[in-house]
Amino acid sequence: MKIIIDTDPGQDDALTILLALVSPEIELLGVTTVSGNVDVDQATINALKTMELAGRPDIPVCRGAERPLLRAPVNAMHVHGRTGFEGADLPEPLTNASPEHAVDFLIRSVMENPPGAITICAIGPMTNLALALSREPALRTRIGRTVTMSGAFSEVGNITPSAEFNVYVDPHAAAIVLESDIPIIMLPLDVTHTLHTSAARLARLEAIPNRVGPVVADWLRFEKRFEANKYGTDGGPLHDPNTVLWLLKPDLYRGRQVNVRVETGSELTMGMTVVDWWGVSDLPKNVLFLRECDVEAVYDLIAERLARF
Amino acid sequence: MKIIIDTDPGQDDALTILLALVSPEIELLGVTTVSGNVDVDQATINALKTMELAGRPDIPVCRGAERPLLRAPVNAMHVHGRTGFEGADLPEPLTNASPEHAVDFLIRSVMENPPGAITICAIGPMTNLALALSREPALRTRIGRTVTMSGAFSEVGNITPSAEFNVYVDPHAAAIVLESDIPIIMLPLDVTHTLHTSAARLARLEAIPNRVGPVVADWLRFEKRFEANKYGTDGGPLHDPNTVLWLLKPDLYRGRQVNVRVETGSELTMGMTVVDWWGVSDLPKNVLFLRECDVEAVYDLIAERLARF
Amino acid sequence: MKIIIDTDPGQDDALTILLALVSPEIELLGVTTVSGNVDVDQATINALKTMELAGRPDIPVCRGAERPLLRAPVNAMHVHGRTGFEGADLPEPLTNASPEHAVDFLIRSVMENPPGAITICAIGPMTNLALALSREPALRTRIGRTVTMSGAFSEVGNITPSAEFNVYVDPHAAAIVLESDIPIIMLPLDVTHTLHTSAARLARLEAIPNRVGPVVADWLRFEKRFEANKYGTDGGPLHDPNTVLWLLKPDLYRGRQVNVRVETGSELTMGMTVVDWWGVSDLPKNVLFLRECDVEAVYDLIAERLARF
Amino acid sequence: MKIIIDTDPGQDDALTILLALVSPEIELLGVTTVSGNVDVDQATINALKTMELAGRPDIPVCRGAERPLLRAPVNAMHVHGRTGFEGADLPEPLTNASPEHAVDFLIRSVMENPPGAITICAIGPMTNLALALSREPALRTRIGRTVTMSGAFSEVGNITPSAEFNVYVDPHAAAIVLESDIPIIMLPLDVTHTLHTSAARLARLEAIPNRVGPVVADWLRFEKRFEANKYGTDGGPLHDPNTVLWLLKPDLYRGRQVNVRVETGSELTMGMTVVDWWGVSDLPKNVLFLRECDVEAVYDLIAERLARF
Ligand SMILES: [Ca+2]
Ligand SMILES: [Ca+2]
Ligand SMILES: [Ca+2]
Ligand SMILES: [Ca+2]
Repeated sequence: MKIIIDTDPGQDDALTILLALVSPEIELLGVTTVSGNVDVDQATINALKTMELAGRPDIPVCRGAERPLLRAPVNAMHVHGRTGFEGADLPEPLTNASPEHAVDFLIRSVMENPPGAITICAIGPMTNLALALSREPALRTRIGRTVTMSGAFSEVGNITPSAEFNVYVDPHAAAIVLESDIPIIMLPLDVTHTLHTSAARLARLEAIPNRVGPVVADWLRFEKRFEANKYGTDGGPLHDPNTVLWLLKPDLYRGRQVNVRVETGSELTMGMTVVDWWGVSDLPKNVLFLRECDVEAVYDLIAERLARF
Repeated sequence: MKIIIDTDPGQDDALTILLALVSPEIELLGVTTVSGNVDVDQATINALKTMELAGRPDIPVCRGAERPLLRAPVNAMHVHGRTGFEGADLPEPLTNASPEHAVDFLIRSVMENPPGAITICAIGPMTNLALALSREPALRTRIGRTVTMSGAFSEVGNITPSAEFNVYVDPHAAAIVLESDIPIIMLPLDVTHTLHTSAARLARLEAIPNRVGPVVADWLRFEKRFEANKYGTDGGPLHDPNTVLWLLKPDLYRGRQVNVRVETGSELTMGMTVVDWWGVSDLPKNVLFLRECDVEAVYDLIAERLARF
Repeated sequence: MKIIIDTDPGQDDALTILLALVSPEIELLGVTTVSGNVDVDQATINALKTMELAGRPDIPVCRGAERPLLRAPVNAMHVHGRTGFEGADLPEPLTNASPEHAVDFLIRSVMENPPGAITICAIGPMTNLALALSREPALRTRIGRTVTMSGAFSEVGNITPSAEFNVYVDPHAAAIVLESDIPIIMLPLDVTHTLHTSAARLARLEAIPNRVGPVVADWLRFEKRFEANKYGTDGGPLHDPNTVLWLLKPDLYRGRQVNVRVETGSELTMGMTVVDWWGVSDLPKNVLFLRECDVEAVYDLIAERLARF
Repeated sequence: MKIIIDTDPGQDDALTILLALVSPEIELLGVTTVSGNVDVDQATINALKTMELAGRPDIPVCRGAERPLLRAPVNAMHVHGRTGFEGADLPEPLTNASPEHAVDFLIRSVMENPPGAITICAIGPMTNLALALSREPALRTRIGRTVTMSGAFSEVGNITPSAEFNVYVDPHAAAIVLESDIPIIMLPLDVTHTLHTSAARLARLEAIPNRVGPVVADWLRFEKRFEANKYGTDGGPLHDPNTVLWLLKPDLYRGRQVNVRVETGSELTMGMTVVDWWGVSDLPKNVLFLRECDVEAVYDLIAERLARF
């Protein structure tokens, strides 16, 4: 399947890209970058470093939106470190970003392929995708589906008491995507918070006998610091890779088709994903909202794929 | 301890009153009524019926607010039936409500007792309490504590995808109470949804050899219909009685002192209780928010108390 | 006609009371106080001083709400001075406020009189009136009308770019009053900003050969400082007295019956009165909204009345 | 001066384009279209017709956004008629729209010219401009200025009681533009409502001895019907042409540099331009907000220019 990853790397974004690159089921057409965990310049450098780590500098990395549609930028350097890649930084990239803007790349790629052919994997704030949809409404029927790490139901929020980071940073963009009629698969905090990057799991990745495994282990070891401490768990959550993992083995995840809306009207709940899990409204069921996964099987899949490098 | 129950009975409200009446640790000074599950006239009749069932027509029932402060009334007859007491209706009351208005009763009772002497048990929309606090700000330091069934964190909402019924009906009142500096103990959906009124538990109450047990069993059997069906569980949640049960045995419940705010600014999330469970803000920890209880011990306590009638 | 003045004096509030006291058409049943221009304690002292200046210490002054329903208090000491009476302060009052709370006085007075008999003159934040309406919904049909200085259309706002002071301080209270079905006559900034307290007009009041005229002139001379400077006009606006003046001579004012709603959902426009002057909605026409007056005739009426002391 | 007109014609939009085309001071680089008065397809046809009427089919017309960023589309066919050109419809255009998207044209034109060289004349909902700014943040410093017909202060609103049409249709876009640091000149309802298209003024345009004058007169005669009737005036307001007229003779208009923000958080006041005319906040003065004009001189200028065709 053909996918484009829209991302703000971030260590777990990089792991997501690596999993896509190493998986034969997936053809990664390109990576588009956005300000989120770090600013878009750093995110673009990090994406290029990841492509080179994987030996795939040929796949285009397209720089995208510098800032959210309406709101002031918010980053997550308190989680990911100053560079977004702290834990195992990589050599400066030898390649450059594509001259094509992320929004143009998204539009062109989708329009050049048959309707439904392309899956968007959205693992950062959704500014690029929202701009592409606004600029070219035909994308609403041409994008096959959008698989996104974002939102929350029972876990409610992480960056604020009621909002998950990716949605909070650009709630207006998320609202545009959620109301677009594109089939959406959402991997929320409810899933990612069950996947602790425990010492044992990181040790397993570290022991993979190639250069990628140890780098990923070091990344996740750094990234977990903030949230493992916050939640008092052995390891932090594992966020973005669930999107690619769901594409590879959807049966590892369970959820429901439900209505999800984004709060954009009040600062107190700004960016909240309002999930009608119990169907109390009659609103259209626009999202496959996943709430559970087979935790060990997810880590088995990660380890199995990373071993292929 | 001296308590006043502010209530919109409702079968589970009636059980709450009965538990207070039969418990020697508690001195019930009076019951104040409010529109919520049913309108305030029906709620007042239901409170009077409950006092007579318990043989305590001497305790005053004071009629209170007919409608929420700002919003149009919303009821829960879809859960509680047209009368609020469907399942085991009781004879029409022989006694009358007190001539004193609920708000006046609340103010007078609190001001006539020493500071901190009175606990308010708030198990309906908080209109009366908000009006009393606005009318007499001294209550902010005179009320000992408010124990309330309201709000949600991981369970998020029941009447809407993001709001619990008691807060949703009068979110402005709830906001006034939560910002009042009164110590607040909140029994949210996170607790009440773990306490299924299963067939076995209802059978146990029904077998209590007095007239109260079977009535309570019949009430809960009716009340559970809507939510047991909605949630697909054996029995529905048990909501309001947790307030009095917490007063009797607080060790049965576990939670944290956290900041809780109420959304009043957006229709989408109107009445949401925004719970800063993970302490990501620096806001004052105004609520003891309970998230768990010992389910079997809670039902044991109910059965033990009802058996005393 | 029987009126109650609900007020936060403030120099122009005091003039309003004086105009009511000296006018034989009006029977002033009492004055209720509220936090607004100054806090309720100072407002109560100022009301008592005003009654004594007029030689009417027999009319009850009832202390009311200390703070707005939901929002933090905001005062207008930048306009009225620290005491609210700067310009011509008066001797400390010899009398005391009534022991009856403003809300109770409002309810009792309206309920003891025939339906429609009483006019409320609301010239401060409407907290007391909102509490009375919430506590006793029968007031919705028993109050004859409410004449209020509040809101704005073309003048938009004064305390913020989109809100007038009296509504801004307690927008939830104003919303309760506006949705109460009581006939409302609104004297907004559109009227009050046309009534400049020019040097010539103040000189005319000062020349009135009794003790009241010069006091009023001194008050208005102080009060005008802030707004005359802000608006660059000869004299400031004249706000609250228009309510009593409209009661005396409604033909001096012109307006329309329109729908008016209050913004309570967004901080940017909090307390704005949204006036459907052009009838683009189908909402009920709940307010007689006045936009113009005969400026000279208004000042003539003031001078004529003050000369009667 | 080089300008781009971003527009949703609409009769008065067409007059704006004609005034730009006929004025030697102005070099019109292109016209970009947007859904507003009519949908973007109709708006594009109308723009092409206008270019052909003026004998300038060589200037590119670029089709833009089909719908607002977040909100459902709202049109103004009740004012402009089904085609947007009712009153004097023109032959179907022989030319086609440019293959370049409006957003791309805006970005390319601004980036290919020296910083500050280009003026954007925004006379419809600002969706295209907001998308261009989000897609290419360099535009924030490269666009010389934006002259826009939008918003209101004392006139408050037209499509709703608190919002002007162009802002209301896409308030999020307007907010993006207003916060962009581009110098903004706003021609609001406060100006446009003073410029009645009276019978005498239309007769003067009709008498212009070329084919353009009578077409414009017929257009404005149709367009005025709705608003002349609504406001009870001889003629309706004249909206969009003020932008180009201000560029030609700014001395005909008077206003102030003030802070203007757009309400996007509450449905009641959605799209309101909150104008801090009196400087009560310390917010940056981001808009030259015009409130008055020399009405006769404005009509003289229109007539003088149209006579040049
Ligand atoms: Ca990410
Ligand atoms: Ca209840
Ligand atoms: Ca006042
Ligand atoms: Ca237009």
